[in-house]
Amino acid sequence: MRVLVLGADGYLGWPTALHLSHRGHAVGAVDSFVRRQYDYELGVSSLVPIGQLHRRIKVWEEISGLSIDPFVGDLNDPGFVFDTLRTFRPDAIVHFAEQRSAPYSMIDRAHAVYTQVNNVVGNLNLLFAMAEIDRNIHLVKLGTMGEYGTPNIDIEEGFIEITHRGRTDTLPFPKQPGSYYHLSKVHDSNNIMFACRIWGLRSTDLNQGVVYGQETDETLLHPELATRFDYDGVFGTVLNRFCVQAVAGHPLTVYGAGGQTRGMLNIRDTLACVELALENPAAEGEYRVFNQFTESFSIRELAEKVADAFSGKVEIATVPNPRVEKEEHYYRAAHTKLLDLGLIPHLLDRTTIASMLAVAERYRDRIDLGTIAPSADWRDPSVRGQKASSLP
Amino acid sequence: MRVLVLGADGYLGWPTALHLSHRGHAVGAVDSFVRRQYDYELGVSSLVPIGQLHRRIKVWEEISGLSIDPFVGDLNDPGFVFDTLRTFRPDAIVHFAEQRSAPYSMIDRAHAVYTQVNNVVGNLNLLFAMAEIDRNIHLVKLGTMGEYGTPNIDIEEGFIEITHRGRTDTLPFPKQPGSYYHLSKVHDSNNIMFACRIWGLRSTDLNQGVVYGQETDETLLHPELATRFDYDGVFGTVLNRFCVQAVAGHPLTVYGAGGQTRGMLNIRDTLACVELALENPAAEGEYRVFNQFTESFSIRELAEKVADAFSGKVEIATVPNPRVEKEEHYYRAAHTKLLDLGLIPHLLDRTTIASMLAVAERYRDRIDLGTIAPSADWRDPSVRGQKASSLP
Repeated sequence: MRVLVLGADGYLGWPTALHLSHRGHAVGAVDSFVRRQYDYELGVSSLVPIGQLHRRIKVWEEISGLSIDPFVGDLNDPGFVFDTLRTFRPDAIVHFAEQRSAPYSMIDRAHAVYTQVNNVVGNLNLLFAMAEIDRNIHLVKLGTMGEYGTPNIDIEEGFIEITHRGRTDTLPFPKQPGSYYHLSKVHDSNNIMFACRIWGLRSTDLNQGVVYGQETDETLLHPELATRFDYDGVFGTVLNRFCVQAVAGHPLTVYGAGGQTRGMLNIRDTLACVELALENPAAEGEYRVFNQFTESFSIRELAEKVADAFSGKVEIATVPNPRVEKEEHYYRAAHTKLLDLGLIPHLLDRTTIASMLAVAERYRDRIDLGTIAPSADWRDPSVRGQKASSLP
Repeated sequence: MRVLVLGADGYLGWPTALHLSHRGHAVGAVDSFVRRQYDYELGVSSLVPIGQLHRRIKVWEEISGLSIDPFVGDLNDPGFVFDTLRTFRPDAIVHFAEQRSAPYSMIDRAHAVYTQVNNVVGNLNLLFAMAEIDRNIHLVKLGTMGEYGTPNIDIEEGFIEITHRGRTDTLPFPKQPGSYYHLSKVHDSNNIMFACRIWGLRSTDLNQGVVYGQETDETLLHPELATRFDYDGVFGTVLNRFCVQAVAGHPLTVYGAGGQTRGMLNIRDTLACVELALENPAAEGEYRVFNQFTESFSIRELAEKVADAFSGKVEIATVPNPRVEKEEHYYRAAHTKLLDLGLIPHLLDRTTIASMLAVAERYRDRIDLGTIAPSADWRDPSVRGQKASSLP
C-alpha cells in the first residue's frame, strides 16, 4: 500500500513512518518542521536527541534497505498539498500534521488562533485535494479522546443512539473539548464527517488517548532512528514528564486534585492501531471513529505508578491546576473497535515504566527542570501572552 | 445600554442597528464592507439600492436626532477588535459579522477556507478581547438552525438531556451541518461555549432560521435607510428569491423534491429577538442557545405560498439540487425560549408576501435573472472553482 504520513518528523509520525515502511508499505514522509520551530520558540528540547528527517531516512535505508520518500512543505499551502498527492498517489494518508499541544494553544490569542487556523486549514486543504485528485484515498486522521471531555455518561466511539420524545436516531457523540487545541480537533472531525457525506470520501478518525513511551521495534534498531521524548510543560505528556521528574529528583507535579482520568496507550499501540485502520479501510463515504486507547488512569494513579516503579525516592506534589477541568469525575469510554480488529494492547506495567525511566536516566544530563512548570493559564490569556515570543 | 453591532452594514445588521438606536440604546456600528466586495466578485447586487454606511448613519441622524458611531475594520484584525472594545466600552455585542452564505462557502477550496478562517478567527479575536477587556459584556452571536441539520429526532435549543446505559447528562445537541459555512458556525458555537466555561463570559447563541422580508419600522422612514434585498443564487434566501422570480415572470426554482423543511422568520422578528436577548442577558459564565425562528415550511410550500399570493401567473419548476441534503425528512425543532421572553411573531401570511412582492415590483428593472441559478455544486468543488475570481 502507498501510505503518505503527514507530520512524519514528529513524536508519533516518525515511528509510524518507520513501522509502515518495515511492514512493506511504500511510505511518503511529509513535514514542514514547524514542530522544531516550537522548540526554538519555547526554549525546550526533546530529552532524546533526534536527527534531521533526511538523516533519519538515510540511516533507515542503510539499515533496512527500505526507502522513505520525503516531502517538505506545509499543509496550509494548498499548492504543496495538491502537488504531493498528485506526485505520490497514496492509497492512504495518515494525518499527524497538526499543532498537538493543549497548553500551546492556551498561551494567548495568537497561539489559539494559530492552532485553529493551522489545524483546520491544513485539514481542509487535504480534504479538497482528496476530493479533486482521488476520492478513494483512505484518510486516517489523528483526533483525540479530549474531544469528548468528561460527560457524566459513557463515551461511545464517535456516535451515540439517542431516543428522544419517542423517536430514535444515531447521531455524532456530543463533544465538550477542553482547550482551543482540542476544539480544533472537533472542528476537523466535523469537517471530515461532512466531506465524507458530500464527496464519498473514506475516513477513520482515531480519537487517541494520551500516549506514553519512546521506544518502538524500529527506533531501537539504531540510536539515530530515535523519536522525540518531550517532558516540558507545553509539549510533554504526563507520564513522560513524571518519569523525567523522578529521575531528576524532582517531585512529580500533579495538577490539582489529580482525579482527572484519561485514556492512555503505549506508543507501540499507536503504531499497531494505525496499521489496523489502514488494513481495514473505511467504506466509500464512511466516516468512522475509533477510540484509540487501551487503559484509563487518573493522574494521581499515574504518579503513584511512577513512584512505585522508580528505584529511588520520589515525592508526589500538588500544584495549582492551570487548566479549567473537572478534577474528580465519572469516566468510562468505549474502546472495542480496535480490539475487534485484532489489537493486542501493551498494558502499563512496571517493566514499561522502568524502560521509560531508563530512557530518562540515559539522558539525565539533558534535563532542564525549568521547562516543566506549566506556562499557560486557562483562566488568563493575557498573563503569559505578554511574554510570549512571536509564532514561528 | 451600549451595544456594538458587528456587521452593521449588512442585511440584518443595519436594521438591527437602527432598531436598537430607535429604542434608546447607544449603538456602535462595526463593518469591514467585505459583504459589498462579494457583490463585486460575483457580479450581483442588492435588488433594493443601498447607500454607504456613513451616508445611512447621517440620514438616520437627520431623521431621528440619534447618532450611531461607525467603526470601520475587520474582526480578523485583533488590533482593531481590541481597540474598538476599549474605545466603545460596550455592555453588549451583537455579532452578525460573518460570511453568511452556504453556497459561497461551497464554491471551491479557497472560498471554504476563507469562510471558516474569516468566521472562526473573527469570533476568536472577539472572545479574547472580551476576556481581556471586560468579561461582563454580553455576546449575542448569530448562529443558524442549519447547525443542527435534519436529525430524525426533535431538535432542542442547544442542549439535550441524554440517558445512556443508566446514567444521565445534559449535553450539547449533536450537530450535522450541511455546508462549510454551516460548519463554521458550529466551530464558533463550540469555541464560545468553551470561552464561557473557562473565562465566565456571557453569551447567547441565536440559532436563526431563514429570514425573509426587507422592510422594518425604521428602514421605512426614508428610502436611504433601506437594507439589502438579495435574490441571487449565492446570497439570496429562498423566499426573497421566489418573490423576485414571480415578478420577473420566471418559474420559481425549487431544488430537488422540495420537501426540505426549514425554520423561517420575518426580518422584524430578528430585530425583536435580538432585543429580547439583550434585555434578558445570559448569566455570568452562561452559554445559552435560542432557536430563533417562528414557523417551519418546506421549500415546496413556500413556492406555493408565493404563487398563491402573486396576482399574475407563475410556474413552479424543479431544478437539480446543487446541495447534498435530505429532500424529504422529519423536522421538528423547539423554539419556545424567545416566546417565553415575550416574542410575538409576525407569521407568514399573504399580506407579508404581498409586501415582498411589492418590493420586487418596485425594483423590477434592476432584476438580473442570470444571477439566480445556483453557482456552486456541493458534489464537485472543482467545476466552479476554475471560473471563480479571487477572493476579496
